[in-house]
Amino acid sequence: MKTILSGIQSSGKLHLGNYFGALRQHIQMQEQGDAFYFIANYHSLTSINDGEQIRQNTIDVALDYLALGLDPEKCTFFVQSDVPQVAELAWILGTFCPVSLMEKGVAYKDKVGQGLSPNIGLFTYPILQAADILIYHSDLVPVGQDQKQNIEICRDLAGKFNHNYGNDYLKLPEEHIVESVAIVPGVDGRKMSKSYGNTINIFDEGKTLKKKVMSIKTDSTPLDEPKDPENCNVFALIKLFADEEKQKEIAEKYRAGGYGYGHAKKELLAMIEEYFAEARERRKELSQDLDRVHDILQEGGEKARKRAETVMEPIREVTGLFKSHQYSLKS
Amino acid sequence: MKTILSGIQSSGKLHLGNYFGALRQHIQMQEQGDAFYFIANYHSLTSINDGEQIRQNTIDVALDYLALGLDPEKCTFFVQSDVPQVAELAWILGTFCPVSLMEKGVAYKDKVGQGLSPNIGLFTYPILQAADILIYHSDLVPVGQDQKQNIEICRDLAGKFNHNYGNDYLKLPEEHIVESVAIVPGVDGRKMSKSYGNTINIFDEGKTLKKKVMSIKTDSTPLDEPKDPENCNVFALIKLFADEEKQKEIAEKYRAGGYGYGHAKKELLAMIEEYFAEARERRKELSQDLDRVHDILQEGGEKARKRAETVMEPIREVTGLFKSHQYSLKS
Repeated sequence: MKTILSGIQSSGKLHLGNYFGALRQHIQMQEQGDAFYFIANYHSLTSINDGEQIRQNTIDVALDYLALGLDPEKCTFFVQSDVPQVAELAWILGTFCPVSLMEKGVAYKDKVGQGLSPNIGLFTYPILQAADILIYHSDLVPVGQDQKQNIEICRDLAGKFNHNYGNDYLKLPEEHIVESVAIVPGVDGRKMSKSYGNTINIFDEGKTLKKKVMSIKTDSTPLDEPKDPENCNVFALIKLFADEEKQKEIAEKYRAGGYGYGHAKKELLAMIEEYFAEARERRKELSQDLDRVHDILQEGGEKARKRAETVMEPIREVTGLFKSHQYSLKS
Repeated sequence: MKTILSGIQSSGKLHLGNYFGALRQHIQMQEQGDAFYFIANYHSLTSINDGEQIRQNTIDVALDYLALGLDPEKCTFFVQSDVPQVAELAWILGTFCPVSLMEKGVAYKDKVGQGLSPNIGLFTYPILQAADILIYHSDLVPVGQDQKQNIEICRDLAGKFNHNYGNDYLKLPEEHIVESVAIVPGVDGRKMSKSYGNTINIFDEGKTLKKKVMSIKTDSTPLDEPKDPENCNVFALIKLFADEEKQKEIAEKYRAGGYGYGHAKKELLAMIEEYFAEARERRKELSQDLDRVHDILQEGGEKARKRAETVMEPIREVTGLFKSHQYSLKS
């Protein structure tokens, strides 16, 4: 069975664009192998220096993923800092990484291009990311196109390490680029994105949700006249939720006339409500029972540490790190 | 009682220049506070990618220091990698360290000046060094002049961290520059240094030692004639070993004539033999009993980890690193 690794960085409240673009497929990965999902809180420190926010984001991400179907029985779900061995491996990998390689980093060059002085965490984060991948002997790392370079850096560092020590101590992961499957329009018709302020959030409810759906931009075709579903933001969103039959039915109403955008929005609203009803319920339950979330993450952390130790032991041995003690696997 | 911290990097076979220049004073520190000495093997990885050599260096350094009087009853003596928490703290500190600060590093600029492409370990080693210091709440860090800049970086990072989180989670160490006390001449009269190939090693014995002492460069004043002790490499070395009375006695022989450099060398040889006799004996014993050395380092590592954990716990708390587990303190 292939080991699949995926890091999750908190990006605030999840919206329909996140969900249909990547998150749904992301969660489905748990069916496809031995999947490790971690909440990347060491990485978050490179941009957030507020403990309360880091903690809150961590819990929110955990609640979101568990509510949306991540199943701790099927995968290993944990917090990055519960496997501090990654920082140790990152140090070791850094000794194989020329400074010039990091200077080519896209995220780093972006910051410098904006006239910002990045911190070392941001500068070297591809090394920590490589450690995150390599420490579980991951086979597959599904990432977006923007992460392609970092997977190459990871393979490069692992290759250098193996070559130097003459054996495959580290497993080179396969690149597995996940294209964003659906472009989801926001309420203003542009791509749904937090930065445009045009999102409909997964866990919005009641009046908030209604207000957002009702604000979706449409043209001014009068109610009586026929409308083109393929040129309508509301219909584009309906397509994400409705099965083919239902889509066809609504498209016909559009074309027949006498069916207004307000009607379509109401149907969409009901679909969203229904689609995420279970997830919302689960999220509420879990947020009332944070001990359970804590237990899930703790158990995941333990499993992940065990795996990490099996990879790190021979690495410490071969690098000559004189270990008079191993990390205890007890929690 | 002040906490004193000192990292030891293996520099191969120790010679008289190391010993009288710094090592002796270094070991005496154990009397002056709660001293932590660690063998800096994570740092060694930045230049040595050979596990056997790292391991051998680690054991050699341990044997050297224990033989020369480092007393594990008086201080905490351990291997850096037995406190992997330093890599974790280094990651956190790195998020407070602008890339530009590392670019000013003297060691880094040296490498770049030599046209070398340094690795990230070398580039960021002042951050790991800061973590080494800060993780034990060290008060005093005795270092040579060449390390002055790194102590400033350490204070800078600790200050930034404390300022951001609004409390003194990290203790700013005092700078304590140790000037090299004695300039020890090598067998060719230049400063004794491995790079000049003019050393007399502490643990040289028998023929090897004799050959080196006999090769000390002198002028060609004939045996019968008076000689100037203050202009003699042999006498310069004698002064390191002999008490004042003995120094005076030999100086008089120099000035009286009829006392050749060969005689002086024989006296020096006997002094070196006697001075290090106990240390050599102890080194031999210990090298026959590596289990004991291992136990000493393991016990030191345990003590050091305990201290490190008391410092790291509030840091994880305040940075928001969601810890569902702490490093176990069991070995």
